[in-house]
Amino acid sequence: MNYRMLFYLFSVILMAEAAFMLLPLLVALIYSENIFPFLITVGILIIISASGVILKPKDTRIYTKDGFVCVAAAWVLMSVFGALPFVIDGSIPSFIDAFFETVSGFTTTGSTILTEIESLPKSILFWRSFTHWIGGMGVLVFILAIIPSDDGRAIHLLRAEVPGPQKGKLVPKLRRTARILYGIYFGFTVIEVIALCIAGLPFYDALVNTFGTVGTGGFSVLNKSIEGYNNPAVEWIMAIFMLICGINFNLYYFLLIKRFRDVFRSEELKTYLAICFVSVSIIVLNTLRIVGNLGECVRDAFFQVASITSTSGFSTTNFDAWPQMSRTVILILMVFGACAGSTAGGLKISRIIIVIKSSFREIKHMLRPRSVNVVKLDGEVVPEETVRGAVNYIALYLVIFVMSFLLVTVDGFSTETNFSAVIACLNNVGPGLSDVGPAGNFAGFSIFSKMILSLDMLFGRLEIMPMIILFSPSTWKRH
Amino acid sequence: MNYRMLFYLFSVILMAEAAFMLLPLLVALIYSENIFPFLITVGILIIISASGVILKPKDTRIYTKDGFVCVAAAWVLMSVFGALPFVIDGSIPSFIDAFFETVSGFTTTGSTILTEIESLPKSILFWRSFTHWIGGMGVLVFILAIIPSDDGRAIHLLRAEVPGPQKGKLVPKLRRTARILYGIYFGFTVIEVIALCIAGLPFYDALVNTFGTVGTGGFSVLNKSIEGYNNPAVEWIMAIFMLICGINFNLYYFLLIKRFRDVFRSEELKTYLAICFVSVSIIVLNTLRIVGNLGECVRDAFFQVASITSTSGFSTTNFDAWPQMSRTVILILMVFGACAGSTAGGLKISRIIIVIKSSFREIKHMLRPRSVNVVKLDGEVVPEETVRGAVNYIALYLVIFVMSFLLVTVDGFSTETNFSAVIACLNNVGPGLSDVGPAGNFAGFSIFSKMILSLDMLFGRLEIMPMIILFSPSTWKRH
Repeated sequence: MNYRMLFYLFSVILMAEAAFMLLPLLVALIYSENIFPFLITVGILIIISASGVILKPKDTRIYTKDGFVCVAAAWVLMSVFGALPFVIDGSIPSFIDAFFETVSGFTTTGSTILTEIESLPKSILFWRSFTHWIGGMGVLVFILAIIPSDDGRAIHLLRAEVPGPQKGKLVPKLRRTARILYGIYFGFTVIEVIALCIAGLPFYDALVNTFGTVGTGGFSVLNKSIEGYNNPAVEWIMAIFMLICGINFNLYYFLLIKRFRDVFRSEELKTYLAICFVSVSIIVLNTLRIVGNLGECVRDAFFQVASITSTSGFSTTNFDAWPQMSRTVILILMVFGACAGSTAGGLKISRIIIVIKSSFREIKHMLRPRSVNVVKLDGEVVPEETVRGAVNYIALYLVIFVMSFLLVTVDGFSTETNFSAVIACLNNVGPGLSDVGPAGNFAGFSIFSKMILSLDMLFGRLEIMPMIILFSPSTWKRH
Repeated sequence: MNYRMLFYLFSVILMAEAAFMLLPLLVALIYSENIFPFLITVGILIIISASGVILKPKDTRIYTKDGFVCVAAAWVLMSVFGALPFVIDGSIPSFIDAFFETVSGFTTTGSTILTEIESLPKSILFWRSFTHWIGGMGVLVFILAIIPSDDGRAIHLLRAEVPGPQKGKLVPKLRRTARILYGIYFGFTVIEVIALCIAGLPFYDALVNTFGTVGTGGFSVLNKSIEGYNNPAVEWIMAIFMLICGINFNLYYFLLIKRFRDVFRSEELKTYLAICFVSVSIIVLNTLRIVGNLGECVRDAFFQVASITSTSGFSTTNFDAWPQMSRTVILILMVFGACAGSTAGGLKISRIIIVIKSSFREIKHMLRPRSVNVVKLDGEVVPEETVRGAVNYIALYLVIFVMSFLLVTVDGFSTETNFSAVIACLNNVGPGLSDVGPAGNFAGFSIFSKMILSLDMLFGRLEIMPMIILFSPSTWKRH
């Protein structure tokens, strides 16, 4: 491994984090709040990273393994330092709790250990939601977008951070790709903030909820999440933006360059929208009797489906109190997630499509062993390597899931709580069911379980591989 | 498809079922019980199958697809007719309930809709348990063992009915294989019956419980299952035989022909025993405080682990009342199952080993794309086709699981009940947790859910493929 280059990259990443932290610092100044949590953290970050940033190594080559290790370690480091403001401010006195909350922020999960949110300083809540925005598109992608590094090898970084099976490169130039992605992301952010302001939210609330929406995170600044605003227009706007941000960003680029056919051909998009439509229909039929009002029922169902399938996790109603069928639909949507190349988590629809097509191909193959069958997506043949990768990903996912599900039982919560807590963290959703439902939180878990769940969030956001490589002893053996 | 040959095979199978039913008829005669339930059913079976058995078609070729269709349809047909005695006798008045109970019997699941067992006639309970014995080794295997058909094409039948990924043929001659398997199976049956009689059980109880043990089924004749005997010796004997019958029967053949090295080399066997040891240890540590007595605690833990991992489902204690960690261990063991080529259900240990090795190979491949890695089991390279088959099997399994989990929510049971009910049926275990735990039963489910769960049992026993092929419209299209 190129340790010097890794050290340089970490320095750049931490410097970027320091830069990001200037924004909540500004918020603290505006609202005359305590600026020291951010000032001290920024200071620490600058001291640690200054020497590294200056000393750029001559050998800037990044191998595949270095790329994975770099991305995984960067996310852990950012979360460690990102947790400091919460601890210094005293909003979250325990470091493990603050780490959990920050990992939950950066990974756009939105699971919280806070039992009372509204009493926290505005600058702290701003930072908490801003981590969603930073993590949504990816920190490494951001750095690639701004620093000059056109040697093409950094593709390993991008590959490790952008979720879902990849059909091919979007545009040949890596840096341009990163800039386009961030451009679209920034555009959505601006439009949603304006829309929410028009709908009647104060600018601050519009901003932090937009961070949670476009990053598909789900942290809110009210104890009752979006339900607390009691504003149907806000609910519709956020639901639509969550749905939008669960779609592959490549498709928006295609829209921009008028390649409409590529958009309409996308099986993943069609399946995603079909899943949302069917889910909303089931939930409406299932909950209409309880809610009574059709308009409210459809709005709640649509908001909750958009929120859960995009793995945001905002709520406008306590879906944990819904009938069993609707709760199960929600649980299944958590695992499915949304589209590859979006800011959402979960298994990703395209991966599920590939895996299902692959297993049905297996049946065909069993009946006619000599026939050659390929898996197609959007009318194109999916390379065997991608198919194998998708299927094996499910297997690794199950291994991580089963281990976590067993380990968190130490705290004695119910099967449903443990099961949905692991699902909510591993898929970066946020709330689960039962004790960790929209009306609950993760505060009751022990330090041990919080660490397991934090790891699950990182496993989910980085799609397992980088984390396994980071923690694999063979990675750190000297060759 | 060769419809005439299929019709012939169905006739042979139903004739075999009629022959099997003479045994409970004998039991009814001995205990002076109503013989008509069996007499009428045997009559119906003979009338239906007589013409078919006589008219053997000239073209006896069986293609792969015919093999799968034949096996799947045979299991459904056998269950339909096997349910008749329960209905005629009036023990289970509803046909759907009787069908569920019979499918549960043949598939060696052991899930029951009966709320009160002990008041039923001995002949009816004998038939109920005997279906475990018939289904354990497979009906088709039995027929292959007795009818002369050495044209080698019947391998498709064996392949569809013997569970787990197959490493290769046991012995070249198919009929010999079937006879050896049944010989070992019969041997275990005789030894266990003798052992249970010595331990103090009446011959009838020894016999029916042996059927449930060697077939890894789990139906018992007492309301409190094996706990009702309150006999530690019986518990130890049954636990050991359940463990034994969860091991690949090929290994017993290797023992017989003194190929000890092949036995000791089996990774599946070692992993199976290791999983059992670790599970028993966790449960003992977790429940010792509650049980108090170490001996009893170890016995209960060992019995329950053997019962669940071999997917039998007998109980000596209400494991649903155990602490959460032990309950979760039980839930995970249900999914794992035991070894391929045994009478047990579940995913099978060797399949799990192959899938985990395959996904870790994927990581290696990601780091060094040009390196060639193979998956090895017992020191031998596993063919890529087998690896792909195992990985895709997990995917199909998940599709069936998620669909069933969603569909059974119509009855409004808790997530834990629904989740564990589907797991218990799909893996042929028997009892689940919560409402379907050892103290509960499946009577509360609606007709719709009972049909779904019956299908799940068949999907699990026949390892999905044959059932999908049977229900696939393309199978029934004329070519």
